[in-house]
Amino acid sequence: MEDHARLEEAVAEIAADMAQRTDRGAVASYIPELARVDPNQFGICVVTNDGKVVAGGDADVPFSIQSVSKVFTLTLALGLVGDTLWKRVGREPSGNAFNSIVQLEHENGVPRNPFINAGAIAVTDAVLGHHQPRETLGEILRFIRHLADDEAITIDQTVARSETENGFRNAALANFMRAHGVIDNAVDHVLGVYFHHCALTMTCRQLAMAARFLANGGRHPTAGHSVVSSERARRINAIMLTCGHYDGSGEFAFRVGLPGKSGVGGGIMAIVPGKASIAVWSPGLDKVGNSRLGSQAMERLAKTMGWSIFGP
Amino acid sequence: MEDHARLEEAVAEIAADMAQRTDRGAVASYIPELARVDPNQFGICVVTNDGKVVAGGDADVPFSIQSVSKVFTLTLALGLVGDTLWKRVGREPSGNAFNSIVQLEHENGVPRNPFINAGAIAVTDAVLGHHQPRETLGEILRFIRHLADDEAITIDQTVARSETENGFRNAALANFMRAHGVIDNAVDHVLGVYFHHCALTMTCRQLAMAARFLANGGRHPTAGHSVVSSERARRINAIMLTCGHYDGSGEFAFRVGLPGKSGVGGGIMAIVPGKASIAVWSPGLDKVGNSRLGSQAMERLAKTMGWSIFGP
Amino acid sequence: MEDHARLEEAVAEIAADMAQRTDRGAVASYIPELARVDPNQFGICVVTNDGKVVAGGDADVPFSIQSVSKVFTLTLALGLVGDTLWKRVGREPSGNAFNSIVQLEHENGVPRNPFINAGAIAVTDAVLGHHQPRETLGEILRFIRHLADDEAITIDQTVARSETENGFRNAALANFMRAHGVIDNAVDHVLGVYFHHCALTMTCRQLAMAARFLANGGRHPTAGHSVVSSERARRINAIMLTCGHYDGSGEFAFRVGLPGKSGVGGGIMAIVPGKASIAVWSPGLDKVGNSRLGSQAMERLAKTMGWSIFGP
Amino acid sequence: MEDHARLEEAVAEIAADMAQRTDRGAVASYIPELARVDPNQFGICVVTNDGKVVAGGDADVPFSIQSVSKVFTLTLALGLVGDTLWKRVGREPSGNAFNSIVQLEHENGVPRNPFINAGAIAVTDAVLGHHQPRETLGEILRFIRHLADDEAITIDQTVARSETENGFRNAALANFMRAHGVIDNAVDHVLGVYFHHCALTMTCRQLAMAARFLANGGRHPTAGHSVVSSERARRINAIMLTCGHYDGSGEFAFRVGLPGKSGVGGGIMAIVPGKASIAVWSPGLDKVGNSRLGSQAMERLAKTMGWSIFGP
Repeated sequence: MEDHARLEEAVAEIAADMAQRTDRGAVASYIPELARVDPNQFGICVVTNDGKVVAGGDADVPFSIQSVSKVFTLTLALGLVGDTLWKRVGREPSGNAFNSIVQLEHENGVPRNPFINAGAIAVTDAVLGHHQPRETLGEILRFIRHLADDEAITIDQTVARSETENGFRNAALANFMRAHGVIDNAVDHVLGVYFHHCALTMTCRQLAMAARFLANGGRHPTAGHSVVSSERARRINAIMLTCGHYDGSGEFAFRVGLPGKSGVGGGIMAIVPGKASIAVWSPGLDKVGNSRLGSQAMERLAKTMGWSIFGP
Repeated sequence: MEDHARLEEAVAEIAADMAQRTDRGAVASYIPELARVDPNQFGICVVTNDGKVVAGGDADVPFSIQSVSKVFTLTLALGLVGDTLWKRVGREPSGNAFNSIVQLEHENGVPRNPFINAGAIAVTDAVLGHHQPRETLGEILRFIRHLADDEAITIDQTVARSETENGFRNAALANFMRAHGVIDNAVDHVLGVYFHHCALTMTCRQLAMAARFLANGGRHPTAGHSVVSSERARRINAIMLTCGHYDGSGEFAFRVGLPGKSGVGGGIMAIVPGKASIAVWSPGLDKVGNSRLGSQAMERLAKTMGWSIFGP
Repeated sequence: MEDHARLEEAVAEIAADMAQRTDRGAVASYIPELARVDPNQFGICVVTNDGKVVAGGDADVPFSIQSVSKVFTLTLALGLVGDTLWKRVGREPSGNAFNSIVQLEHENGVPRNPFINAGAIAVTDAVLGHHQPRETLGEILRFIRHLADDEAITIDQTVARSETENGFRNAALANFMRAHGVIDNAVDHVLGVYFHHCALTMTCRQLAMAARFLANGGRHPTAGHSVVSSERARRINAIMLTCGHYDGSGEFAFRVGLPGKSGVGGGIMAIVPGKASIAVWSPGLDKVGNSRLGSQAMERLAKTMGWSIFGP
Repeated sequence: MEDHARLEEAVAEIAADMAQRTDRGAVASYIPELARVDPNQFGICVVTNDGKVVAGGDADVPFSIQSVSKVFTLTLALGLVGDTLWKRVGREPSGNAFNSIVQLEHENGVPRNPFINAGAIAVTDAVLGHHQPRETLGEILRFIRHLADDEAITIDQTVARSETENGFRNAALANFMRAHGVIDNAVDHVLGVYFHHCALTMTCRQLAMAARFLANGGRHPTAGHSVVSSERARRINAIMLTCGHYDGSGEFAFRVGLPGKSGVGGGIMAIVPGKASIAVWSPGLDKVGNSRLGSQAMERLAKTMGWSIFGP
């Protein structure tokens, strides 16, 4: 109870403070749909394992979750192909920019982890399996709606199309992996699914809800069943901690101390294992591509609540 | 109480099992002193925050802690120069071998983190400050003896000399950083201190004792005072989690789920924040240079005790 | 006259000797059409600036000229866009494998020279300009037939199709350059033209004829007009010397001492400035992808005739 | 005769023109001795194979030849250890800055060619052999005085000392190669000799004289004997062409078309095989570290005289 009160106070204070900030970073500009987003927005939502939902600011404004979607496709892929997934994608931090192709060449087309672009494309290929892109997208969408208990979640087709038209670098990565036999499906099929799941549009509330299973030892708290085993949930959290923020993953672990995943749309999802799931959103990015105010909000929340996984 | 019993049982079982294993990996061979170590050894020691010490196997056999010492010099350096340390060393995982010089060239001589060799050499330069190597080594030794409550800990001069004679690659790293102004002292002074603190000889018991402050929010549990602030303790733990095992850091996070630091002598130190500190040792290494049986023992212990920081 | 006699003798001896060699290297195997070529073939043809044609061995057997075609498209592109070509492709040796993508990332998508794959693709984009692929291929074919005074030269459509089906790595390079704005046309158009001009099928005789202008200060010796200025001919020769043999360019300069260009089909074209043009062919390749016997034949011919550009 | 007249006219015009230029580039600044050199100087000297010496501008002002000395130590090393030298140094262009350590790591400590710093240090180690640094330096000095027929050539001890004090990056390279067993002698011995031969002080006249053997098929034109075989002379010329100007080697081949070697002191030595040797000097450097006016003077001289090795 006391904790809920402290949480409500913390979220309210953070939301109020962030609404006034002027140093917001620049929004992503590589596609017009993201470039147009108003930077003066900030949302936050926390869902505790005992079911309390605490929201603040623009928690109900939908935004493009972009790379945050990689956590859900990783979860799906592990369910579909199990640990054989790790034959085609590693789980080590990359020490490079999210879209670097250098590492791929040095390591024979095997991406370092599932959260750099190349790795997420390889994961998407595994999710695709022998199915058609349309079916696969349907499955991804159903999965996320189920996780969030919310049928209103959709994919923004305009964003997906825009990504496709500007996705030459991802096409380079995909072709490179295809050349090394790391992906099996036709490059344009894999990229089609990839660009579409990155174009998922969600609110902070929906995102925090969808992340609950990772805070709950893999269980869907309302449906009751296991989405993944508790061991797999821990492992997904571990990968988020070491690789979830591109070349700022060490920094996020250092400052916030929670497993998390960011996207260039300005969203960040984080997990307090055994306690809560969190989503924050603010479109302005720092120099490595993570939400500037979002990262700061996470740091402050984790500190106030004593939630760091690295100690009291 | 029940927990203590479970811990004692787990440690005993692990020690018994590891004593019988034959797939031990190869001991480090780049200096004769390490190459001569008998691979058929395994030690483990856990110290809980409530003061219980549980040891198994060769927990009282001294070994060369090598890179594990980097955690202690990092702690010292942060105490001496504070967060200005981060101007000359980063805190991102490297995505490269522990002794790579490529990253240094791409990033103007600034090492990615304090646990790759270059970073630990830069940290050693900060600890050295304006003092003489001999004084500095005395300070490091006093610090570790204090942390472990054990005056018997020493530096193996033969190992230190052997490292110096074979340390051309580290000399390359140090000269490269000196060329970029990242280290200030004479290269041979810095390397002298570095090779000597890596030559610290400790038992699992001593190492687990020395690590207690990181499990205790920065406090020395018997002396009572703060070694570092709780925030700094969390941050050191965070860096261990993301960077503590060279290019196997992601794997250790994935499998074990605890902040830890390994050394080529076969030792691994790990922290269960708020609960316990652990040291294991077995000289045979896996292909990225971490103790093979040591890593497995850590994985098993964390699983049995439910100690992963990534969830229940 | 005496020179002609010496040349005839040299060519005959080399052809006879190479016919008996058993250490021929392995033929390229990445597409079935190249993998099927009989390795026991060797052809050579020299055309002197005074019009003498000296052929030996399988000089009239057609083969896939592959990367040798890059010299002709470079010549065409310089004619079409002039020195502005150098804004999108460099002229420095690469120090990397022919199909490396690492350099592209480090240098913002600008390939180091026109003879690595990425550079040749960028050159092809310049040749394409605002035309359709079919027209452009027609123009390339007419150009080469004109240079060789031979209307029988064709493109092998089966090879071109096979390259297209296996060209994921080149597609990665092209998409990467497109992402950096280094190529303007649709990736599949550029690659279509690229794969087709690499599939040109020529004999040693035809190739040596087509290369005459580079030995003649840029002039077409029978048509009489200038194909390129003498300065441009020198410069194309210079690029062949420094970059013409992938990561074996230094070796070819060191051993042979002539500007040349090799292809994975086993052909090598070389220029003796002011004196002669040469083509050799033998399908077996050395470890960096250049014709093994072809390189040796070039070395011997240059030595016997005193043709090295680096001194008597 | 006519040629001599044309040469005298060309040299005079170039010297006059360069004296008036204001866009001279910046002098090297990493050691005070080089930083202090007056940029408003330009010297040129050509020695033809028939013995004509044509000088212009500041042809008799001594300057620090720096990396140009690498040609002489390469020649010496080949005389001492023959082609076994190529086991520890390659002969391919590097595609990297002159002092890059990245390539060394990727290729196990073997430098790409004898003209990048690492390669020249490995060559110096070979020249050192089992001798003392002082003896070896004496031998190098005697060799160059003999080549130039000039006993007045000396080493600038102040420059050598200054290089030593600032040579951390070269110390990094040397230690790295020592770690890989590519150099045998003590690192400080090798660097001592290296820094001293780079500190040779010569005039354009002396340098052009010293280079004569490379234009004369390896023969010392006045002493009459062979310094190296004609084949070795050609090969040294070939390496100068492909690797003589750091990451501007392709550009020099493209623009000038002569084998040459530059130094950060602003000197360039070039060879017209079978015809002449050339030295130019102007202290201001372009962005890759080659003499700005020196390169332009070479281009103009080669064009005027029709001396490019790549054609008429």
